[in-house]
Amino acid sequence: MEGSVRVDAPADPDGAGEAVVSQKTGTLYGVGMGPGDPDYLTVKAMRVLERAPVLVHFCKRGKRGNARTIADAVMRDPAREFPLAYPYTTELPPDHPDYVAALAGFYDEASDRLADHLGAGRDVAILSEGDPFFYGSFMHLWRRLKDRFPVEVIPGVTGMSGCWTRAGTPITWGDDVLTILPATLPRAALVERLKGTDAAVIMKLGRHLPKVRGVLAETGFLDRAVYVERGTMAGERVIPLAQKPDDSAPYFSMVLVPGEGRRP
Amino acid sequence: MEGSVRVDAPADPDGAGEAVVSQKTGTLYGVGMGPGDPDYLTVKAMRVLERAPVLVHFCKRGKRGNARTIADAVMRDPAREFPLAYPYTTELPPDHPDYVAALAGFYDEASDRLADHLGAGRDVAILSEGDPFFYGSFMHLWRRLKDRFPVEVIPGVTGMSGCWTRAGTPITWGDDVLTILPATLPRAALVERLKGTDAAVIMKLGRHLPKVRGVLAETGFLDRAVYVERGTMAGERVIPLAQKPDDSAPYFSMVLVPGEGRRP
Ligand SMILES: C[S@@+](CC[C@H](N)C(=O)[O-])C[C@H]1O[C@@H](n2cnc3c(N)ncnc32)[C@H](O)[C@@H]1O
Ligand SMILES: C[S@@+](CC[C@H](N)C(=O)[O-])C[C@H]1O[C@@H](n2cnc3c(N)ncnc32)[C@H](O)[C@@H]1O
Repeated sequence: MEGSVRVDAPADPDGAGEAVVSQKTGTLYGVGMGPGDPDYLTVKAMRVLERAPVLVHFCKRGKRGNARTIADAVMRDPAREFPLAYPYTTELPPDHPDYVAALAGFYDEASDRLADHLGAGRDVAILSEGDPFFYGSFMHLWRRLKDRFPVEVIPGVTGMSGCWTRAGTPITWGDDVLTILPATLPRAALVERLKGTDAAVIMKLGRHLPKVRGVLAETGFLDRAVYVERGTMAGERVIPLAQKPDDSAPYFSMVLVPGEGRRP
Repeated sequence: MEGSVRVDAPADPDGAGEAVVSQKTGTLYGVGMGPGDPDYLTVKAMRVLERAPVLVHFCKRGKRGNARTIADAVMRDPAREFPLAYPYTTELPPDHPDYVAALAGFYDEASDRLADHLGAGRDVAILSEGDPFFYGSFMHLWRRLKDRFPVEVIPGVTGMSGCWTRAGTPITWGDDVLTILPATLPRAALVERLKGTDAAVIMKLGRHLPKVRGVLAETGFLDRAVYVERGTMAGERVIPLAQKPDDSAPYFSMVLVPGEGRRP
């Protein structure tokens, strides 16, 4: 599905022979921006980024989003930029009802603003870190807009692919089972899911690193675990987790546990 | 790390003032080719494919590999092509000792042939479906060559990203746990790993589809499961698994079980 779908207006009711007005609706693009290095953008993502009149990125108030930084390679026109700043929170956990309500309001309002552009025929591209359909914020806007406008999602290289590439290690061999876990889960759930897996990726580290370290020690994976911060971005760090002296980790970090399956 | 590393030969021993001969070693590239649509190649992959003098792809005897087909968009010089045909097998399972031995011999021999090119200063690019470090055949050559030659891996959009994109469904929301399973595993192992996960991807389907269908029914996931064949390639098919009338599936197919986590 390339470009926009044409929605023809109803024909002139009194048949006066006026030309039928055809109104174009914009297409909503979810653009996978890859893990960080702009060389890992896809050919299709580049094409959409170069053309779309409205380029949306999520950010924290007063800061640039990471997806926006990746786009520096192609974006030089501030008039196209459309930042969406998340609602400010002091320290509510992501599943707190107040925070969920605030987020829902934020996504509703943002969708309305994007619907105005789409309805007026302007394509809207939402910049999404990694792959848009893999834990992406884009999905919350997609859910609200997909039944009203044409949509095209452009898959991207995930953050985890970028991280295991820079760690220099394959993640799965042969019949390895790979388990992908958000570090935000309770300790017991992490232990439960790690037991019996062959390989793992633990995302959304942030303040959860001490818990993750403990869980990996308990399940026997600590010696194999690699910590990757800002993989393929400026400020990248790769270090065996057992050698990381402190427990601080930014949001853009993850732990990899490479598999050790069949290697003929 | 761009291009090749220069290895300087030892200086002229008798100091006769001859120019120092510097011998270049080629770089081994693992090139992520993405899920199938050449528009999902990365900028970096395109660059390496355009330049590398030796372009390797895996295939079955007498056939083209899928990674090679993706490269059609950029490759028009047969002199650069270097096909590696897997050893012929009647019907040995992948963990049969005879088959493992035959594969090991094949990878050893292939590595030797590539080492000749690398040693002579020619860059070698190995075309890898999806992402090279995610269940990739590339890894078996990488393992044999990585300590002798400079290596650069270029991450790619995985086959599964391509498949959930074309299925039109996000795979994970909020705190969803995603489990990635090869269908080649025994039935009991599949059931065990699926229990308690929120989302799943089941790869390497082929003749294992009847088993996978049974396992998904047993774990309550059948109603949510989507079958995707040749996602983003020519001949793509997407169908809810419960509606798929037969149990035939090619190697390039997978089953997705999308998560249903937090959606503010
Ligand atoms: C909300 S998820 C978004 C994932 C994204 N859609 C993807 O496909 O990678 C955010 C998490 O992704 C991980 N992540 C994404 N890119 C990363 C990178 N370049 N380096 C380290 N972690 C990364 C971090 O664990 C972070 O907490
Ligand atoms: C040896 S694995 C290679 C995976 C690859 N390195 C990747 O990143 O996707 C081969 C399996 O990947 C899956 N696969 C890869 N690309 C696919 C596609 N475009 N459509 C369907 N399945 C695909 C199939 O399940 C296939 O059996």
